[in-house]
Amino acid sequence: LENICIAVDAMGGDHGVSVTVPAVTRALQHIPNLSILLVGDIGAIEKQMQLSNLVASDRLSLIPASQMVASDDLPSVALRAKKDSSMRVAINQISQGSAMACVSSGNTGALMAIARFVLKTLPGVDRPAILFPLPSVNGPVYMLDLGANVDCSAAHLFQFAVMGSVLIQAVTGSDALPRVGLLNIGSEAIKGTDAVKQAAQLLSEAEDINYTGFIEGDDIYKSVVDLVVCDGFVGNVALKASEGVAKMILKFAKEEFNKNIFYKLLGALCYPVLKNLYKRFDPNNYNGASLLGLQGVVVKSHGGANESAFFEAITRAVTEVHMNVPEKIKQVVAKQLGEPVL
Amino acid sequence: LENICIAVDAMGGDHGVSVTVPAVTRALQHIPNLSILLVGDIGAIEKQMQLSNLVASDRLSLIPASQMVASDDLPSVALRAKKDSSMRVAINQISQGSAMACVSSGNTGALMAIARFVLKTLPGVDRPAILFPLPSVNGPVYMLDLGANVDCSAAHLFQFAVMGSVLIQAVTGSDALPRVGLLNIGSEAIKGTDAVKQAAQLLSEAEDINYTGFIEGDDIYKSVVDLVVCDGFVGNVALKASEGVAKMILKFAKEEFNKNIFYKLLGALCYPVLKNLYKRFDPNNYNGASLLGLQGVVVKSHGGANESAFFEAITRAVTEVHMNVPEKIKQVVAKQLGEPVL
Repeated sequence: LENICIAVDAMGGDHGVSVTVPAVTRALQHIPNLSILLVGDIGAIEKQMQLSNLVASDRLSLIPASQMVASDDLPSVALRAKKDSSMRVAINQISQGSAMACVSSGNTGALMAIARFVLKTLPGVDRPAILFPLPSVNGPVYMLDLGANVDCSAAHLFQFAVMGSVLIQAVTGSDALPRVGLLNIGSEAIKGTDAVKQAAQLLSEAEDINYTGFIEGDDIYKSVVDLVVCDGFVGNVALKASEGVAKMILKFAKEEFNKNIFYKLLGALCYPVLKNLYKRFDPNNYNGASLLGLQGVVVKSHGGANESAFFEAITRAVTEVHMNVPEKIKQVVAKQLGEPVL
Repeated sequence: LENICIAVDAMGGDHGVSVTVPAVTRALQHIPNLSILLVGDIGAIEKQMQLSNLVASDRLSLIPASQMVASDDLPSVALRAKKDSSMRVAINQISQGSAMACVSSGNTGALMAIARFVLKTLPGVDRPAILFPLPSVNGPVYMLDLGANVDCSAAHLFQFAVMGSVLIQAVTGSDALPRVGLLNIGSEAIKGTDAVKQAAQLLSEAEDINYTGFIEGDDIYKSVVDLVVCDGFVGNVALKASEGVAKMILKFAKEEFNKNIFYKLLGALCYPVLKNLYKRFDPNNYNGASLLGLQGVVVKSHGGANESAFFEAITRAVTEVHMNVPEKIKQVVAKQLGEPVL
């Protein structure tokens, strides 16, 4: 088994080292061929390492970084004014050849801006994109772009479909091509924007894509496709509207169960049922967004990730390195563009 | 009190006359100055009128229509090949001066196409739009466009905000300007498409609009604004994704409560709580979408509406006529365009 080295931004996310260091401890225990570069405030990292009974070794090195990207830093600020941030230094490890991938639970916009600047996009890829796993009735579904690519052309949407398909095959280990749906406002061919209609044409003509047609917003959660393709504006709104509804339902449910003492008792009795229900939507169970189209593997953990969710994000990065996702994307994009694969 | 005459498409929706006729019966009982033109298959209408103890009178006339728009008819087909549909004949009543408004629970796309063709848009309005009420944590929030206007310019989004503000003031009877939010992918001014950024500029400069800034997808349900403005593509996806999540949660909740006999019992005990919870999202409690920007009042009831929901849609049409919504929209649009109000 090849050795895989991952740079971890120790400082990102809501919980910083108290989540990242224990998750790294677990990853080193579970993944034998893994080594980690832990990047950030050495004092804070070492303090947490003591608590987690973790010691530096030939599989674990610490790399200092004097700055941190805040959750509300503008990408431009993070990029220009924080050149010694844990996020930047972690990504630098890839470009310097010290690490094969980077995992961070910091600010998404900053992570994309820095990764794009430091690593550059793959040849033939116009815009990198972010792919998220979401719950659906029969297991996870993947959606991209959730990386703020607005005003996408048909060619951009097509590339998203290509990159997402490669990633899903790598993650699931399946030979079957994932089913790809294009998000639209109706299933008839006449519906939608010009970009969406032209992308549908490109996708139905492509050989290496299992394009199943247009899907609508409610289909995201019906497990009718494995990959949902849309521009970053629509994807962001769909994802956040979904979160908003789920939170409102939770709030209303709490209010209903608090209406009287009998309902409160019922609510207490229902706790295991409601807890299991909540688990099925818990973002911790759907962690690990992939930045695709870059010359390197970058995985974004969600900011509120707990230890096991951050561990999953590390595992995702290991899989992407192991399956050589960037190289595969490069090859498929080159093939789709009709260019010889170098 | 002025007399208000409403044309009702008796045949539309999932339940046809079995919902529309009882709802009309109730409307005639509750709204003294209302008269109704009931449009459709006279035989079917009369049969249901007997069951509902409803008789024709000076407040209720029947108007024959030999065709029906199906829920899957393309708008173009409904418009060109079904000139004697109940929907078309009902809208014709407005252009002929026989009715002041039309209510239908038929196919949304067809209703918009026919209404736009027959009634024409108001001067200064480029595109009519559809405004929907949605649940949010502190009562209803309104959103437009949900009428398939894709590729909207800043001027279109601005007009949507104007039309939606007028409608909400009419419906709530409030003098206060409704709070208007523009749907975007972040709250910073640099985020979003050019159209959204320019619309924000127009809205912040407008006098008669209470523009509060950008909102994100999850804010739709937080009651932070009264009106959510977006293009028809984004609106449709956000609405359907929200429905999809709510249905998935319902499905998962049923599965969890069916896992064993004890949970099943608990589920049965919880029935009143869960029923109250469901009510808070029931589309029947948020019925009546307004087609805005037309030279006439057209209200779309959702297809699955029950009697009381369809009654609400009729009430909405009465309010819009009473408050003279099209004339007010015309005046505000003319003022915003800097033109003299005729």
